[in-house]
Amino acid sequence: MFNTVTIVGVGLISGSFSLALKERALVKKVIGVSRTEASAQKAIELGLIDEALPLEEAVKQADLIYVAIPVDATIGVMQQVMDMVTDKQIVADAGSTKHALCAAMDVHPMRRRFVATHPMWGTEYSGPEAAVRNAFVGRSCVICEKEKSDAAAVATIEEVYRQLGMHLVYMDADSHDMHTAYISHISHITSFALANTVLEKEKEEDTIFELAGGGFESTVRLAKSNPAMWVPIFKQNREHVLDVLNEHISQLRKFKACLEKENYTYLQELIEQANTIKRILK
Amino acid sequence: MFNTVTIVGVGLISGSFSLALKERALVKKVIGVSRTEASAQKAIELGLIDEALPLEEAVKQADLIYVAIPVDATIGVMQQVMDMVTDKQIVADAGSTKHALCAAMDVHPMRRRFVATHPMWGTEYSGPEAAVRNAFVGRSCVICEKEKSDAAAVATIEEVYRQLGMHLVYMDADSHDMHTAYISHISHITSFALANTVLEKEKEEDTIFELAGGGFESTVRLAKSNPAMWVPIFKQNREHVLDVLNEHISQLRKFKACLEKENYTYLQELIEQANTIKRILK
Repeated sequence: MFNTVTIVGVGLISGSFSLALKERALVKKVIGVSRTEASAQKAIELGLIDEALPLEEAVKQADLIYVAIPVDATIGVMQQVMDMVTDKQIVADAGSTKHALCAAMDVHPMRRRFVATHPMWGTEYSGPEAAVRNAFVGRSCVICEKEKSDAAAVATIEEVYRQLGMHLVYMDADSHDMHTAYISHISHITSFALANTVLEKEKEEDTIFELAGGGFESTVRLAKSNPAMWVPIFKQNREHVLDVLNEHISQLRKFKACLEKENYTYLQELIEQANTIKRILK
Repeated sequence: MFNTVTIVGVGLISGSFSLALKERALVKKVIGVSRTEASAQKAIELGLIDEALPLEEAVKQADLIYVAIPVDATIGVMQQVMDMVTDKQIVADAGSTKHALCAAMDVHPMRRRFVATHPMWGTEYSGPEAAVRNAFVGRSCVICEKEKSDAAAVATIEEVYRQLGMHLVYMDADSHDMHTAYISHISHITSFALANTVLEKEKEEDTIFELAGGGFESTVRLAKSNPAMWVPIFKQNREHVLDVLNEHISQLRKFKACLEKENYTYLQELIEQANTIKRILK
C-alpha cells in the first residue's frame, strides 16, 4: 500500500501503528521522527522504524505522514508538515482531541491532504517500549470531518484502519471531543483521583500491595498514564471535561448522601442504574 | 483433607471455592445450601455441589462449613450454624466485612470453631454461573482475629487457602474493614458512579458502545456488580466507606479546580502523584 510511511513521534500509538503496517506488509519502509536520540535509537532497536530522520527529510520521503505526539505539540508540528506536503502525500494524526487541530487546519491551503483520525485504542504506558503487536484490533477509529479531506486520501486511510481490524465511526470534531470526554477522558480523571485517594488514606503501602485485588487494579490502571499526554488533552478539551467531571462529582455525592442518611433503598437504586451499563458494553 | 464440605450459598465465591477444592482433591463431597431451588439445581448441573440439602442436615454432615452469602444475611445464618456445630467441625466465612460478624461471634460458646476469612478475589458477576476454575490463585486472603479460633482449625483453613494458591495476611476485624474500604469498597463506588455519570451525560447509547475502549471498560467493569452483595457491604462498613468517599470527592475537586483555574502545573503534579501507584501495584 505504501512505499514509505513517516511516523512523527515514536511511542505507544505510532510504534504500534508501524508494527501493524509492517506485519500486514502494508509498508516497505518506516521512518521515525523523534525529539530525542534515545527514543529514536530505541525505536530502531525494537524494529518500530527502519531509520530516524529530521522532520523535513522524513516528510519529503513519505507517502503517508502519521503524527502521534502529545496534542499540545500536534498543531505546531502539523503546520510544519502541511507546509511541506504535496498533492501526492497524505497526512493523518491520531490525537485524542480534534476540535483545536481541525480548526487550525481549516485555514491551511493543503487541508484536503489531511485526514483527522483517532484510533480508540491505547494502554496506560508510553514511549517506544510501550508499542505492541496486535494493537487496534476490534476497536473503533473515529474519522473527523472527512468531507474536508480528498476522497481518495480518506479512502486510503479508511482502508489502512480496516486492515488493522478497526471499525470506522464518523463525527465532526466538536462531537468527537464531547463524546471522548464522556467515554474516555473522565475515566482517566476518575482513575488518577482514585489513586490519589488511596495513597492519601492508606499510609501502609505494603497493605495496598498485599490487598489490591483485580477490582482495584482494574479501576486504578489508567492512573499510570503519562501526564505529558494527558495534561494537554484535558487542557484542549477543558469545557467538555469540566462538564462531565461536575456530573461525576454530583453522582458521587448521591452515594455519599445515601450513606450519610442511611437511605439504602436509594443506594440500591443507584447501583441498579449503574448495572444497566452491562447492556451497552460489548 | 475433608470428607465433606458444606457451602452455604452457591455463588461466585462458594462455587469457585468448591471447584478449587475438588480440582485439588481436597474434598470427597460438597453439599450446597441455597435459598432457591433454581440455584441449587444450577449448582448441581455445573458440578459445584454434589447434593443440595437444608441447612441443618447439610451442617450435620460437614467437616467444614463455608459460608459465602451477602453480609447482611451472614450473621443470622452463622448463628444457626454455630448453634449446631461440634468440636469436630470447622466453620469459616468469606465475607467482605468482618467487624460486625466477629463482634457477633465473640459471644458464641463455640467461637473457637469459627475462622473469619476474606479471600481477596472476585469478579463483577454473581450466582452459580459466575463460579470459575483457578479462582483465588496469587491473591491474598485475610484471616481476622485468629487468636480467637482453635489453633488446629486455623491451621487447617490456612492450609486450604495455601493449597488454593493464596498468601495469608492477618488483621483484626476493624483494620480489615478500614483497609478494604480504602482498597476495594471505594473502587466499587467509583465505578458505579462513573457508569451513572456516563449514562447521564451520553444520551447516545450506540456511541458508548462504539467508542468504549479498554480504558473505559476497565474503570467501569465493577459497575456491573450485584447490589444484593454491595448494599450490605456499604451498610456494614458505612463509616470507613464514607471516610474514603469524602477523600475521593475532595481529590476529584482538586482536578476540577485545576481545570477551572487553568492551573496546569498543579494538574501535572496531581497526575504525577497518581502515577506513583505504579510502584505499589504488582
